Amino acid sequence: MRTIDWVVGAAGGADGQPSPGAVVIVDQTALPHEVRHLTLTDVDDLVGAVRRLAVRGAPALGAAGAVGVLLALQQARDEGWDDATLHAAVARVRGARPTAVNLAWGVDRVAARLPDGLAAVEAEARAVLAEDVTANRAMAERGADLLDALCGRDDQATASDLRVHTHCNAGALACVEVGTALGVVRALHSRGRLARVYADETRPLLQGARLTAWELAEMGADYRVVVDGAGSSLIARGLVDAVVVGADRIAANGDVANKIGTYPLALAAARAGVPFVVAAPESTVDPATPDGGAIEIEDRDPDEVLTFAGHPVAPPGARAVNPAFDVTPADLVTAIVTETRVVRTAQGDRPG
Amino acid sequence: MRTIDWVVGAAGGADGQPSPGAVVIVDQTALPHEVRHLTLTDVDDLVGAVRRLAVRGAPALGAAGAVGVLLALQQARDEGWDDATLHAAVARVRGARPTAVNLAWGVDRVAARLPDGLAAVEAEARAVLAEDVTANRAMAERGADLLDALCGRDDQATASDLRVHTHCNAGALACVEVGTALGVVRALHSRGRLARVYADETRPLLQGARLTAWELAEMGADYRVVVDGAGSSLIARGLVDAVVVGADRIAANGDVANKIGTYPLALAAARAGVPFVVAAPESTVDPATPDGGAIEIEDRDPDEVLTFAGHPVAPPGARAVNPAFDVTPADLVTAIVTETRVVRTAQGDRPG
Repeated sequence: MRTIDWVVGAAGGADGQPSPGAVVIVDQTALPHEVRHLTLTDVDDLVGAVRRLAVRGAPALGAAGAVGVLLALQQARDEGWDDATLHAAVARVRGARPTAVNLAWGVDRVAARLPDGLAAVEAEARAVLAEDVTANRAMAERGADLLDALCGRDDQATASDLRVHTHCNAGALACVEVGTALGVVRALHSRGRLARVYADETRPLLQGARLTAWELAEMGADYRVVVDGAGSSLIARGLVDAVVVGADRIAANGDVANKIGTYPLALAAARAGVPFVVAAPESTVDPATPDGGAIEIEDRDPDEVLTFAGHPVAPPGARAVNPAFDVTPADLVTAIVTETRVVRTAQGDRPG
Repeated sequence: MRTIDWVVGAAGGADGQPSPGAVVIVDQTALPHEVRHLTLTDVDDLVGAVRRLAVRGAPALGAAGAVGVLLALQQARDEGWDDATLHAAVARVRGARPTAVNLAWGVDRVAARLPDGLAAVEAEARAVLAEDVTANRAMAERGADLLDALCGRDDQATASDLRVHTHCNAGALACVEVGTALGVVRALHSRGRLARVYADETRPLLQGARLTAWELAEMGADYRVVVDGAGSSLIARGLVDAVVVGADRIAANGDVANKIGTYPLALAAARAGVPFVVAAPESTVDPATPDGGAIEIEDRDPDEVLTFAGHPVAPPGARAVNPAFDVTPADLVTAIVTETRVVRTAQGDRPG
């Protein structure tokens, strides 16, 4: 099952006519309680799905941008749009989440083929999806190889032995398939090396409890959800063999921006001598950002902290700050794994 | 306002008769949405209030044990109980929360005066409450003095300047009045030195968002609630001048057990060169516990993690681990402040 895909013959078109293609996504707002697929044949339905986070995660948003252009072009053909209407629709996809660089990247890559017609656009959009899957598979195997090497292997043991800690959701649900950090976990599980995953719940939006737990259950892995405050001490107590997380942006020097709550895991891992590994595509490495100090930290809506499922948790009038990301300094990062290489960051190697 | 108190003439007795005394508590299950006082004239109502955490926090439970014995004796007199009935009631108070050592301590101290009659028992119970307040006031002033010294003072500045980070609720609501870590914050606020408090929400039970935020609002302090994962990076970003937390148990070597999520703050504070101060009464220091490794970590109900305000947050069948405490090693603790002394733990001084 793909988080986002282009499916031909999946949907009825307008007025009950068969539609040649549709964007099919797993609606992540319904998880973990229901696996609901949305079949989208109107570009503005896709824009709405992106806006309400039915599809989220940097690689998945790149894919959404790619298939969004394809969907717009198909709709232009079927509904007789002029060029201005088509380009306005493409612009709405591109701007659905203004700060998501991958979304714009996916739109721009496929929109460059618009002059070549529907077949060329479909081929480019499918290439974006396929490349994401290929990159994640390569990253997963390379990451599993690295953890094999870093954590050793007891030759006497045939049983799975690695206990991995992860944060947020860097899984298939953030990509087209496989996942980044959870792709590595998936590869370890396939190799029979995975004993357990500790998944931080990841407040305020609980991507760990909702999405990572769901993916781990689907793959049949032994896992435990923990509150975010518990990760560091699980590592200190010797219950974790490696920390594996994704990244939102990696600076040239190897400083890593990732979901808020990543940095304390790196601190604890360094003190305990446990490997701290970042799995992320090459596109995450930003050579134009010299170090973590140059990464702007997005502050999100305080209500995400002050409420839960619509219920206020703090006193009336309470104020909150809600930084979405933190920065883990390169010296705490054992290695960065991408689809093409392993960068030994803590040893001074620079990814950018 | 006291979190728990013995009030004469506060309540009507049985059958509308005036009752000479009652236990009055702030019902913490109603906070932060409502300030509800419970006036308890039946010892089993007090037992129920303790069981459902309407009163919580180690020092407050000691006080509850103390006034619980007084309430039982008054009820025995008014209702003509025999000794066996009285002692059974005292035992029910003592056992209301089996793992709360302070509760048993408060019961035992006051029950020792039962042979001396109601006046002696009331005097002893009031002494327990008064000593808690006196100890917290001394701790608060000593802690504020320490932070004055540790954080320096810009002689040019008349404005408040200290930004303090705290975790969970080590406040008046955990004691009779004042609080431990929040007592120190309160003293800094009274001295005009407090610029802001960052209060971790403290999953899973949200004592920070519910109780600490409420206390800070009551005292008129500028505060922000943050998710637990955010604390470490706020410290790294230079937004925090000192971390001040309470303690559940302190080992002889200075290792500190406190609410889960404390340890990552200590790691971040040490790396940033920010003071990490523990404020706790002398009764928290346990000379019989050599170090943190000897402290058993209570695992609580996984459902506290898997649900939020009664709503499931993880997939059906999800599993969680829910350690209630973590241990911060002594070398990360700048100082432990009690009602009688300052122990410079990170410098190798031992509290026990």
